[in-house]
Amino acid sequence: MDGSPSAPGGVSGPGRVAGPEEGISAEELALAARNHGLPLEALRYDVTPPGLHYVLVHYDIPATDPDGWRLTVGGRVLRPLALDLDALRARPSVTRRVTLECAGNGRARLTPRPVSQPWLVEAVGTADWTGVPLAALLAEAGTAEDAVEAVFTGADHGVERGVEQDYRRSLPLRVAADPARDVLVAYAMNGEPLPPQHGSPLRLVVPGWYGMAHVKWLHDITVTATPYTGFQQSVAYRIRTTAEGDEPGAPVTLIAPRALMIPPGFPDFMSRARVVRPGPVPLAGRAWSGHGPVTRVEIGESDGDGGTAWTDAVLDRDPAHPWAWSSWRASWTATPGHHRLTVRATDAEGHVQPLAAPWNRGGFANNLVQRVEVFCAPERPEGIQAPEGAEAPESP
Amino acid sequence: MDGSPSAPGGVSGPGRVAGPEEGISAEELALAARNHGLPLEALRYDVTPPGLHYVLVHYDIPATDPDGWRLTVGGRVLRPLALDLDALRARPSVTRRVTLECAGNGRARLTPRPVSQPWLVEAVGTADWTGVPLAALLAEAGTAEDAVEAVFTGADHGVERGVEQDYRRSLPLRVAADPARDVLVAYAMNGEPLPPQHGSPLRLVVPGWYGMAHVKWLHDITVTATPYTGFQQSVAYRIRTTAEGDEPGAPVTLIAPRALMIPPGFPDFMSRARVVRPGPVPLAGRAWSGHGPVTRVEIGESDGDGGTAWTDAVLDRDPAHPWAWSSWRASWTATPGHHRLTVRATDAEGHVQPLAAPWNRGGFANNLVQRVEVFCAPERPEGIQAPEGAEAPESP
Repeated sequence: MDGSPSAPGGVSGPGRVAGPEEGISAEELALAARNHGLPLEALRYDVTPPGLHYVLVHYDIPATDPDGWRLTVGGRVLRPLALDLDALRARPSVTRRVTLECAGNGRARLTPRPVSQPWLVEAVGTADWTGVPLAALLAEAGTAEDAVEAVFTGADHGVERGVEQDYRRSLPLRVAADPARDVLVAYAMNGEPLPPQHGSPLRLVVPGWYGMAHVKWLHDITVTATPYTGFQQSVAYRIRTTAEGDEPGAPVTLIAPRALMIPPGFPDFMSRARVVRPGPVPLAGRAWSGHGPVTRVEIGESDGDGGTAWTDAVLDRDPAHPWAWSSWRASWTATPGHHRLTVRATDAEGHVQPLAAPWNRGGFANNLVQRVEVFCAPERPEGIQAPEGAEAPESP
Repeated sequence: MDGSPSAPGGVSGPGRVAGPEEGISAEELALAARNHGLPLEALRYDVTPPGLHYVLVHYDIPATDPDGWRLTVGGRVLRPLALDLDALRARPSVTRRVTLECAGNGRARLTPRPVSQPWLVEAVGTADWTGVPLAALLAEAGTAEDAVEAVFTGADHGVERGVEQDYRRSLPLRVAADPARDVLVAYAMNGEPLPPQHGSPLRLVVPGWYGMAHVKWLHDITVTATPYTGFQQSVAYRIRTTAEGDEPGAPVTLIAPRALMIPPGFPDFMSRARVVRPGPVPLAGRAWSGHGPVTRVEIGESDGDGGTAWTDAVLDRDPAHPWAWSSWRASWTATPGHHRLTVRATDAEGHVQPLAAPWNRGGFANNLVQRVEVFCAPERPEGIQAPEGAEAPESP
């Protein structure tokens, strides 16, 4: 299965990278218009309101019926299960605060650019997910001795690179059945039933893993004796460092470390460049890693000669929420002129965000540091019109 | 005020249109990644869940504090008001179901393409908005005899084409103070406090008008004796049919008619083209106009020779919700091969959606008909892999 057939009917093409001068295509735009990231100022919220949390839907949001929903657990199990929502809600539940990031975050900052959902840096969000521990469900069903994986099937149906499919992914049982990994079959987000775009009525939540593992509209879990090799496991979501050829690639799994900054000051509508006033400017943001706690966040300021001066930010980790982003803060003194600010995270395993993008064919896990262009303007720069907002309109 | 200064510090450029071969730029992509449209399958919901309703934020979503919020009503009034949220909630309220559409919807389908938020067709949504009728607040404050407009100021602050500003727009008093126009100062969306991105804690809702009139994060209403000429009124949101020059342009006001179809069948991830099976295919969607009720929705199928065969859809108008979209349905029989479906709306004033895009410099009010490419595939076309989703994975 190499995903190459451009079928059915030519609606589905092979994967490709954009040409050297190629702008974002109409197809990429259509994805960007329906999926969306976190507006970066929303990093201010510990828990992201649902409409601001990033959303990536492969096919259509399915029209699901919570009343008739069944989750089946079968395959290499001793006691197959078929549970409706009431049955799931009647079981012991846990709530976990989890930062979720799309594996394709950063894709549109790669050169050449893999043509797919064109994320910049904003495909992230944090929510309180409530559900039944997957480990408990698997223990209840009892896995056979030869079981190695659990395969999760969602209700979203479509075509991808010529392969018609329901969205489906697997996890090794050592992850799926480990209570310490906190994998959940979740039915609530921030205390409310799941919104349609986040998997109503059921989804998987796999703390620390990129979003492709968190199967939405979940209706079946099949335990298997051999590793799953379907499209989303073996064709998509692989790190292939060559531009062409049969390289199988390494699987995309844990979230690489990333820090993001709430862009300081205020923006220009079109360029999104930032304007600040001279003087102290508070900087703040979030940082996370699927490999373990973030241990360091550094703020960099370009010195104009190609160098960067780094200073440590203050990191505020909340031990109650080990799967959620940490907040950080720093102060910076703005002087008139143009500045470029950078922020980078280091995690407990020693992974450091790179200053050059780690390219791969699918555009996955590009955790290149965020860079923010800031212009520091005097209070009323010469030639600038009076701020409309600073005075009352049309005084009576 | 012509919006031309490219300041401060070059962060803000003049308006422009894209070159003949220019793909979507990085700046347009940054807007598309943070704002988002309605995934078209969400046309299935009478009332759009908040996270699926379109969002367009000019600057940043401001960090507002509902507890300390004050709405001031001043200017050419007899009794200025300063109301907190409790005071607003204590007044008689109404709830109105309103379809809201961005004035820039359709912009990215224009040639040449005005460079701004690059909407295709999806910048729409419908919500139940609860608040105090603006007409009642203006009656309470009492407008002076020479009053002609009400100017609304939001808390979002930024730069646009060189002009630093709080977002601010006006309405003629004949609209603002007319109880029949149902203009609301809204504090709830679908029965909940406004989400941050929809104006928390207060916004204006102006039924029938494009989104730019529905000022979010509303904190001041100033009644004036002369028409407001600020940036968002006189520079932006004007219909200018020439590519350059000093044309003042006509103001953007009421929503032009539009019908949208829930794309039938299932999609290809990347191309978003649709796949259906042979036989009857139900078609459904929504249609709306700010000029009055939609009176006709037609489905068109291209005949392959440049012509289109039109048939009427069944329109289902709900008199309880005159400001909301109407649903429509039709049936279509798919035969194997490629098809192009079109849908167009006509309103009670006789406005009909155009088959060629109405170009203007700002890319506003482009209500060109939606066209949906559909490929009808036999159940198991030759050369197509078996649907992964149709069979159990890795049977035990």
